Amino acid sequence: MGTATDGQALLGPALAAIQAEVDACFDALLPMAADPRDRLVEAMRYAAIGGGKRLRPLLVCATAAMFGVDRTAAVRVGTALEAIHAYSLIHDDLPCMDDDALRHGKPTVHKAFDEATAVLAGDALHAFAFELLSDPATSGDPFTRIELVRTLATASGLHGMCGGQMMDIVAETTTFDLPTVTRLQQLKTGALLGAAVEMGAVLGRLAPEGRTHLRGYARDIGLAFQIADDLLDAEGDEAAAGKALRKDAAAGKETFLSLLGPDRAREQAHLLVEQAVAHLASHGPEADLLRALARFIVERDR
Amino acid sequence: MGTATDGQALLGPALAAIQAEVDACFDALLPMAADPRDRLVEAMRYAAIGGGKRLRPLLVCATAAMFGVDRTAAVRVGTALEAIHAYSLIHDDLPCMDDDALRHGKPTVHKAFDEATAVLAGDALHAFAFELLSDPATSGDPFTRIELVRTLATASGLHGMCGGQMMDIVAETTTFDLPTVTRLQQLKTGALLGAAVEMGAVLGRLAPEGRTHLRGYARDIGLAFQIADDLLDAEGDEAAAGKALRKDAAAGKETFLSLLGPDRAREQAHLLVEQAVAHLASHGPEADLLRALARFIVERDR
Repeated sequence: MGTATDGQALLGPALAAIQAEVDACFDALLPMAADPRDRLVEAMRYAAIGGGKRLRPLLVCATAAMFGVDRTAAVRVGTALEAIHAYSLIHDDLPCMDDDALRHGKPTVHKAFDEATAVLAGDALHAFAFELLSDPATSGDPFTRIELVRTLATASGLHGMCGGQMMDIVAETTTFDLPTVTRLQQLKTGALLGAAVEMGAVLGRLAPEGRTHLRGYARDIGLAFQIADDLLDAEGDEAAAGKALRKDAAAGKETFLSLLGPDRAREQAHLLVEQAVAHLASHGPEADLLRALARFIVERDR
Repeated sequence: MGTATDGQALLGPALAAIQAEVDACFDALLPMAADPRDRLVEAMRYAAIGGGKRLRPLLVCATAAMFGVDRTAAVRVGTALEAIHAYSLIHDDLPCMDDDALRHGKPTVHKAFDEATAVLAGDALHAFAFELLSDPATSGDPFTRIELVRTLATASGLHGMCGGQMMDIVAETTTFDLPTVTRLQQLKTGALLGAAVEMGAVLGRLAPEGRTHLRGYARDIGLAFQIADDLLDAEGDEAAAGKALRKDAAAGKETFLSLLGPDRAREQAHLLVEQAVAHLASHGPEADLLRALARFIVERDR
């Protein structure tokens, strides 16, 4: 089995590589149209290119690589997933939602363009994700492609991200207990992180019954990710985060942090990471990057 | 070949049937969750169930029926398409877009709920469409399912509906000529109507090279539909339409109507319908419903 040190040395270059690859994929697939749609393409590119940590695409690629999947295919799938993530951030930042002015250290899409363009850019990136996954260039096997679509649509809709976001809105006026906050976070952020690992396994043609440990890994890093996010919101540096912080307390929302307190929350996050890593025990060094990613998730500063 | 009279007798019952079937499909697939997501499910149901003419699902079913496709599958595909149409109307009606208070004779989603819920309900219906198409219950053949996804994603994204909506926003501040207005409308409404016919053909496993005449039919009814919409906007009855009218002139946008004048616009719409029907010349009575639909599109009052 690989060591933590091996993994950490892998992570920096792996993050730099995936960031460049996802940017290049968006750049190639979203050329300016040279017609009145240009403002929309510009807004999509503004939101999608440069800025994200690309954790989700890296999860796709790291999982897919364990099963010998072609890197180009994994990057395309990661880019589709990132398009969904990017659309959700655009819509989340809208004045009627979180009303945020800053994202990835630059003005949010509705500030840099306008609200109507932001709504449309989100919608167009949403459709783009499914265009990309359904394209034969992503996989020659229609069954693989349709499983990718199904995984992503389920993880991002009512039974995933959108459902979690609705719960998050309700949380502003309702006091949720720990199981309900856990459920909220599993939907809001966990579903898409889980989809990243799942889509890597789909690309690797791993049978669903062989994915149990990977799903366990994804579930644990998903919750750890959210606790780390809560801690960052409370204790992080706005300049490093590139977005407004201290929003949970201001909104009066119960979070892992408010329910557990900072010490227990931190402890819980580390426990979840160790549990996530334990799910990978049957794998050798080929899972080192996933192990390193699990640790990075609670140690990042943005 | 069937006659116009045969077709018109088919149309009333066909519209009534598809409206009931699409409502039933949404109702079955969007049950209340009995959890904090209920407000989202409620908003999705409010937007999706009861109200639409269901022209797009009827186009899917009428096309699919020509090739002996199972009705249940065609209704599911039509419902997915209608979910995309419904999401686009929710987002279109938002204050930052068209700022409409009335749709299908009832308050728009952001009026009946709130703006954040409206954004999310649109997003969740968007994802729902792809969940539905990728579900094996829609078709046992993965290739059929992925072709359905690809057709719908392309027709609704940057190169279809969203692109057309962006052009429509630009049209408020730029004077477009007839070819540009035609392009705008082909994207904004034509792409989704075209997708309806295309998806019927995909379900019928018609080879792409055998779809040329159906694409011609769809292109012609798409433009006829938009001219009829322009005329309705200028001359129609708000109560019958169930939405605000006289919006194009108020926004100062060039339309088929403003560019051609009412007489030439009406003439052009009828010409397009005859041209659409002519594309179906190789078909017998099995295409009567498509013929009747083409005529209905310019004769409807909402």
